[in-house]
Amino acid sequence: MRIDKNQINTLNDKALPDHRESFEYISHKLTARDIPVASLIEKIQSFQIAIPSWALGTGGTRFGRFPGGGEPRTLEEKIDDVGLLHALNAGSGAISLHIPWDIPENVAQIKAHAASHNLLFDAVNSNTFQDQPEQQKSYKFGSLCHSDADVRSQAVAHNMEVIRHGEALGSKSLTVWLADGSSFPGQMNFRKALQRTLDSLREIYARMPEDWKMFIEYKPYEPYFYHTVIQDWGTSHLLASQLGERAFTLVDLGHHLPNTNIEQIVATLMMQGKLGGFHFNDSKFGDDDLTVGAMKPYQLFLIFNELVAGMEDNTSKNPYPAWMIDASHNLKDPLEDLLQSVEAIQLAYAQALLVDRKALENAREDNDPVLAQEILQRAFRTDVRPLVAEARMEAGAALDPLAAFRTLSVRENLVRERGKKSMATGL
Amino acid sequence: MRIDKNQINTLNDKALPDHRESFEYISHKLTARDIPVASLIEKIQSFQIAIPSWALGTGGTRFGRFPGGGEPRTLEEKIDDVGLLHALNAGSGAISLHIPWDIPENVAQIKAHAASHNLLFDAVNSNTFQDQPEQQKSYKFGSLCHSDADVRSQAVAHNMEVIRHGEALGSKSLTVWLADGSSFPGQMNFRKALQRTLDSLREIYARMPEDWKMFIEYKPYEPYFYHTVIQDWGTSHLLASQLGERAFTLVDLGHHLPNTNIEQIVATLMMQGKLGGFHFNDSKFGDDDLTVGAMKPYQLFLIFNELVAGMEDNTSKNPYPAWMIDASHNLKDPLEDLLQSVEAIQLAYAQALLVDRKALENAREDNDPVLAQEILQRAFRTDVRPLVAEARMEAGAALDPLAAFRTLSVRENLVRERGKKSMATGL
Amino acid sequence: MRIDKNQINTLNDKALPDHRESFEYISHKLTARDIPVASLIEKIQSFQIAIPSWALGTGGTRFGRFPGGGEPRTLEEKIDDVGLLHALNAGSGAISLHIPWDIPENVAQIKAHAASHNLLFDAVNSNTFQDQPEQQKSYKFGSLCHSDADVRSQAVAHNMEVIRHGEALGSKSLTVWLADGSSFPGQMNFRKALQRTLDSLREIYARMPEDWKMFIEYKPYEPYFYHTVIQDWGTSHLLASQLGERAFTLVDLGHHLPNTNIEQIVATLMMQGKLGGFHFNDSKFGDDDLTVGAMKPYQLFLIFNELVAGMEDNTSKNPYPAWMIDASHNLKDPLEDLLQSVEAIQLAYAQALLVDRKALENAREDNDPVLAQEILQRAFRTDVRPLVAEARMEAGAALDPLAAFRTLSVRENLVRERGKKSMATGL
Amino acid sequence: MRIDKNQINTLNDKALPDHRESFEYISHKLTARDIPVASLIEKIQSFQIAIPSWALGTGGTRFGRFPGGGEPRTLEEKIDDVGLLHALNAGSGAISLHIPWDIPENVAQIKAHAASHNLLFDAVNSNTFQDQPEQQKSYKFGSLCHSDADVRSQAVAHNMEVIRHGEALGSKSLTVWLADGSSFPGQMNFRKALQRTLDSLREIYARMPEDWKMFIEYKPYEPYFYHTVIQDWGTSHLLASQLGERAFTLVDLGHHLPNTNIEQIVATLMMQGKLGGFHFNDSKFGDDDLTVGAMKPYQLFLIFNELVAGMEDNTSKNPYPAWMIDASHNLKDPLEDLLQSVEAIQLAYAQALLVDRKALENAREDNDPVLAQEILQRAFRTDVRPLVAEARMEAGAALDPLAAFRTLSVRENLVRERGKKSMATGL
Repeated sequence: MRIDKNQINTLNDKALPDHRESFEYISHKLTARDIPVASLIEKIQSFQIAIPSWALGTGGTRFGRFPGGGEPRTLEEKIDDVGLLHALNAGSGAISLHIPWDIPENVAQIKAHAASHNLLFDAVNSNTFQDQPEQQKSYKFGSLCHSDADVRSQAVAHNMEVIRHGEALGSKSLTVWLADGSSFPGQMNFRKALQRTLDSLREIYARMPEDWKMFIEYKPYEPYFYHTVIQDWGTSHLLASQLGERAFTLVDLGHHLPNTNIEQIVATLMMQGKLGGFHFNDSKFGDDDLTVGAMKPYQLFLIFNELVAGMEDNTSKNPYPAWMIDASHNLKDPLEDLLQSVEAIQLAYAQALLVDRKALENAREDNDPVLAQEILQRAFRTDVRPLVAEARMEAGAALDPLAAFRTLSVRENLVRERGKKSMATGL
Repeated sequence: MRIDKNQINTLNDKALPDHRESFEYISHKLTARDIPVASLIEKIQSFQIAIPSWALGTGGTRFGRFPGGGEPRTLEEKIDDVGLLHALNAGSGAISLHIPWDIPENVAQIKAHAASHNLLFDAVNSNTFQDQPEQQKSYKFGSLCHSDADVRSQAVAHNMEVIRHGEALGSKSLTVWLADGSSFPGQMNFRKALQRTLDSLREIYARMPEDWKMFIEYKPYEPYFYHTVIQDWGTSHLLASQLGERAFTLVDLGHHLPNTNIEQIVATLMMQGKLGGFHFNDSKFGDDDLTVGAMKPYQLFLIFNELVAGMEDNTSKNPYPAWMIDASHNLKDPLEDLLQSVEAIQLAYAQALLVDRKALENAREDNDPVLAQEILQRAFRTDVRPLVAEARMEAGAALDPLAAFRTLSVRENLVRERGKKSMATGL
Repeated sequence: MRIDKNQINTLNDKALPDHRESFEYISHKLTARDIPVASLIEKIQSFQIAIPSWALGTGGTRFGRFPGGGEPRTLEEKIDDVGLLHALNAGSGAISLHIPWDIPENVAQIKAHAASHNLLFDAVNSNTFQDQPEQQKSYKFGSLCHSDADVRSQAVAHNMEVIRHGEALGSKSLTVWLADGSSFPGQMNFRKALQRTLDSLREIYARMPEDWKMFIEYKPYEPYFYHTVIQDWGTSHLLASQLGERAFTLVDLGHHLPNTNIEQIVATLMMQGKLGGFHFNDSKFGDDDLTVGAMKPYQLFLIFNELVAGMEDNTSKNPYPAWMIDASHNLKDPLEDLLQSVEAIQLAYAQALLVDRKALENAREDNDPVLAQEILQRAFRTDVRPLVAEARMEAGAALDPLAAFRTLSVRENLVRERGKKSMATGL
Repeated sequence: MRIDKNQINTLNDKALPDHRESFEYISHKLTARDIPVASLIEKIQSFQIAIPSWALGTGGTRFGRFPGGGEPRTLEEKIDDVGLLHALNAGSGAISLHIPWDIPENVAQIKAHAASHNLLFDAVNSNTFQDQPEQQKSYKFGSLCHSDADVRSQAVAHNMEVIRHGEALGSKSLTVWLADGSSFPGQMNFRKALQRTLDSLREIYARMPEDWKMFIEYKPYEPYFYHTVIQDWGTSHLLASQLGERAFTLVDLGHHLPNTNIEQIVATLMMQGKLGGFHFNDSKFGDDDLTVGAMKPYQLFLIFNELVAGMEDNTSKNPYPAWMIDASHNLKDPLEDLLQSVEAIQLAYAQALLVDRKALENAREDNDPVLAQEILQRAFRTDVRPLVAEARMEAGAALDPLAAFRTLSVRENLVRERGKKSMATGL
């Protein structure tokens, strides 16, 4: 199923009078505060978030999985799904593949297919946290950190293969998330595990194409429950520093201990020129992988506040980060979940763009926390939905993507096409 | 210093054109959705939040205190400060006293003073977590739970004295927060401590005036760091149930373990008819006692969503709860902090009133979490500031209380009147 | 494979001289402190821990599963595995079944089989957190709490079926763990969900055999990540109180928010006569389901300290609790993990038995936290391994069960019998 | 009051028969496992823990303070108190001063006084978290990170003064703990604050004597509750790396978010040659500053396991770390608390020395978590109290320091000498 521009236009036309009113009101208010609305709209439109191929099917927990229907059965269908999202919100213009779940059989065809949806291939992701049927060595006790050199070699080779697939499709970066860790005190030698990981990453880094970047993810726990080799940003940053200029830290919002100040980590990494990528999701307890903005929208805004500040005043030349959603849609329709996530990101970004940075810096220099809070909250409390809707409509997408998804019966169509019991590869 | 209505009117007049525009926009939008704006305004106006007498001076931490100036030196001046707040925001129409810090010497005079500011006396608070100079027995190892019957009697007697002072002023409820607990495994017998607390509370309850209510606060830790006698809502509810119909649980937002679902606790307590009172503040790590809404405004909204639902559909006849701010203003001007807190509460309440409850219940019955989230976020993302401002202005208060506070140089005036080194009693 | 008494005796004989020395030393020391060693030994022997049928195969996480070999393929083989454990440690004399994974086809045969291993059938467990192939209605959005009455009826009927199977085998209690909850704010009506759960439990309770007990488990999160219907002991206790005298709370060590004082919950529940059962495991982050005692052995001791105190001074007539291990063995051999778990439980119990309760109560009454800590640590720091080993040997089991397991090549034998790729039902 | 060797000998003599028996038993058992007992004893004796001058009086919380009696009123008396501890346990051979609370008036006299107790001066500590009466600029909004260059200069100058005092007394290191941070989102510019802190530390580092080391402490929160400039080991390590070879990270056990794997941080820092110092205490919720080993003795052991491993296999040439207790004794007698803390440290150290490292490494290389756990627990479950007691007795101290403290009525004597209402400076 593809969504036709006409379908979207018809829906937009119906909603237009109400939208026009709202947009004019906010434009008027912002203009009165000397905020250039057109430039805001442009920035919102430029912000593109990659969709990972594994987020298009129903996720599960260790207690079970309750599949929906119409899940994509092939890489082509996964691209189609991202295409649907992008047609609806004009903000999901990239797909992030996961190897071995998404090995393209015919590269040219896959590239053409993605291009037909106006999609790019963002960072590729390796998988050394599961054993594949044909695999020689098991990752049960680690991969790049494993005590057995053969397992490490196998994991390095896998990463090289992932890069090869990515290169063919036009990707420019590799994201390494390692489950590697231990569940029992004593099980692993912390120092050896870290050293081996560094050594393995060095091999991959050395053989990575020269225009590629490596993103190193960190996570404090799960699937192992005592220690993870890359437990926090400090460890990831240590590795990235020792690897070289094209190695960076990747922040996943759900990969932190309770109460961590994530926005500070973002600021520190950008200050060091080492923030490479970002995985969006939301959580209450741990790596809950919930819809972005569903739980802590103010925290999301505070993080965007640092991202915008860091990009606007980029003295340390941090590269433009790779944005991706990384969530697990157990209860919601995956596509609806992603539409809500992209919307939440766009709203937070728009709000962060509204922050009066000059006034904020003055309040900070004056040690006026009351005023500093007012300035942030003024931006956060602004209803920016009409701005984001306008940005979408102008780009040819839907004023209200979720409503469009339902009105156009997208899921029903997909079920019809793919069946009730289709299952996304890798899940 | 008192704020003159004319001063406020003059300020409001200046801000009026901009406000009028905003208010008309939101009124128009809400009316189009069949939401009666006048009734909203009325509800916001009726929502009155008590200010505790101890929140009017600069707070401290165990590492030190950095006092500001112009702090109230007497109970009269504390009442004046709450009067200033109420003049500015028309939402702080009550004061909550703390004994022995606020013992009124001349009751009639104090009552008249409060009445002149249009203030009521809300719940009175006892203090058995500190030793007073003249005190016979020490609370170092507990009060109502103490192993020594004489300490328990002293603490019971103190609570009776608090009630007497409250009765004289027109209060109708007693809030009991117990620091009682232990810092080391083994130190206290959990069961004996709970039994003694119940027995002591029974004595107080039995002697409380018949039209009084008792609010029992819970807290998982601090100032003791292993166990507290009333560690959670479950324990408080157990005590309240065993005491009788006029005993209730009091929820303080900062008194929970990391990641607790507080809104669910609120819902459960209202369902049992046992939610007596509420202490507002915000926190990131523990009982941080920060400005309401400064950290997790969405959580605050979700809590209000339950409060509004519980009050609208009150099958279990939960009494109307007592609302109070309980924060510690270490870095901000206490009055500015309280103005921000009240505003955050009013905004969250207004947003919760906007929730389309019927649609929400339908989405829930249909197990449509996507739609349920949309409905909540639609309310939360609405910019309700003009509604709250209108409610204030209509009630004779300031469109922008914080701006008014600064423009009118309230703190500077207070410093002039009371001195740079004044100190609020009890701090 | 069955372990022969002679095999165990041979192994014990080798280890005997060293053990004898250790045991005599500790006996001598304890006797000098007027502690009756024989009675200690007897108590340790009487303490029997049920093994759940699902703990005998390799567990998984949502990221994957790395199966070992020789897993039990049938209920008979599961019983055999528990029989092996019990032969080795004389402390695992019961099995706890999970329906529908363990439906006995021939009850008489299964009973005889268990009896041949000297095993009893402990609490039976229902499963409404997964959909079974033949199931009419889905539990995706809840079971006993579901908005659809038909789903609730199905879940009630399932629980009745579980009871029937349990009755046939001689079980006397039903453990209800509900995954029921929601992952998104707004998704569920907290009050309705709790009311429906209560109503559903009432139906089950009403139809439960008269000599049966119901254990209600609580858990703050997972598999849902915003709210669970029975989030904490307070909610479970509320339900158990409203259900009746034969409904109790069940404590699972991993089902708590960070830093919860679990031993206090144990004490409070026993004080109310409402502690029904206990699920042992250990954790660092959440419901990690690790080997008992692997992470926080002192906390385990403190919990046993309350259990022993509550059983010795049982004024509120709490029934003798049902003990079970509930862990997930992802990395370790499941049987080895269980041997370590049972050992850790026996050691903590033995240490708790050594606490000088009279001296402890005196220190508490005197508010002497230094001495109270000394008394607890004196017990905890005592090396009680020889006591526990003696208790085992006397009961015909192994001095060192884990060493015996390895020396006797139990796993290798099981792999030979059952194959490398056998898989436990339900995993 | 000074404790006489004869007093200790008399007490030891009484306890000797029982001790001798226990020591011989453990010696026999260890010797059978080829563990050289004499070398163990020697290592335990060499392990000296500094006592901070502020730990000798009763601590407080923001809710109040319940002072005991006989607190040291002068620096001399503080040294006397540490002398008492050292006489009793032969393990507290150093004092760590805090400026401005402990400015020595007569350096020669103070040095002689310390020498008479056999005490060294360990790291000196600066204080920029409080305002002193005579201070020009306030630290309310930070010190080394402050937006005002004059405040930063003042704080730098203070640190230089601290170094001068330390130099005079023979200290060789400066510990910098900064409260610097913010309590409200927006209040501080994260990057500027970190940059300013780095710049300020650079000034201090540049002017530090050439044989001095700088220890940089980190802490996630308190006294500020949104962000701290040095929130975690990663930030401290970043600063230490940028400063130079003589800058190190200092780990305080209480300064971590819930569930942090501290032992891994220790291992990583030692691997980088950057672990400078250690502050011991224990906690359940946050920086609770409780008696070492009172809450999580196994975690303490696991940390010592890394410390011992790192010191034994010191390929990265980590300097020998500075050990200090940093606790706050609100409920216990401060000296008794310190005796319990030192004992807990000595026990954990002794247990860590018992770990069979070769076997452990083999188990790790074989990915045998069951065996690795057994090896650690075998060490931890060993009752090493007789070893530690022997080490003390041999060094001329008490077999049971706490019993000696009570039998000799030390506190009563101190109260007699110093009065019931004496108060330690700085509290």
